[in-house]
Amino acid sequence: MAQEKYLPHPAREEMRIEAVLRALADPVRLQLVREMDRIGAGVACGAIELPINKSTRTHHMRILREAGVTRVRPEGTARITELRREDLDTLYPGLLDGILAAKR
Amino acid sequence: MAQEKYLPHPAREEMRIEAVLRALADPVRLQLVREMDRIGAGVACGAIELPINKSTRTHHMRILREAGVTRVRPEGTARITELRREDLDTLYPGLLDGILAAKR
Repeated sequence: MAQEKYLPHPAREEMRIEAVLRALADPVRLQLVREMDRIGAGVACGAIELPINKSTRTHHMRILREAGVTRVRPEGTARITELRREDLDTLYPGLLDGILAAKR
Repeated sequence: MAQEKYLPHPAREEMRIEAVLRALADPVRLQLVREMDRIGAGVACGAIELPINKSTRTHHMRILREAGVTRVRPEGTARITELRREDLDTLYPGLLDGILAAKR
């Protein structure tokens, strides 16, 4: 729960569709989400290779987390990020799959 | 086709998921889309009541059209706007329904 304090996540009922869509409406963040979906399990920060620097990556990961698209949890000294698929599928059934189906 | 010239629409294959999500990630535009979905058929410009002025409405309708979310066609002297549901459902199956399912 300490984790929740310094890395805040919206509860499911606090999530807003506008924020979720804004978070997803960016090519880098879409790429991160596609990779997280492909990998399936949670991924360590930096495990997804993208031609962006660390602060840019941190910025994008924060937007995804704050919108409720991803959840970050500590695992030893690492931070593991995963898609909040159950929350997204419950609130907006079909949304995530529809986006992941996009060819571009 | 003259209509297409002065009110350009992307062809289905030109649509981009980022542009569609950006277009939808706004409370006013989401409201317009919800109302168009509720009404079902095409709606005349101004038929949807919103507390926004005409130029703001025109701006939002343009963003929806240019992203491929809506199609505008002339009908007599009116412009009729409708959701491009078939295009959206084909490219991003579930996306629109997932968004419309959102309580907020």
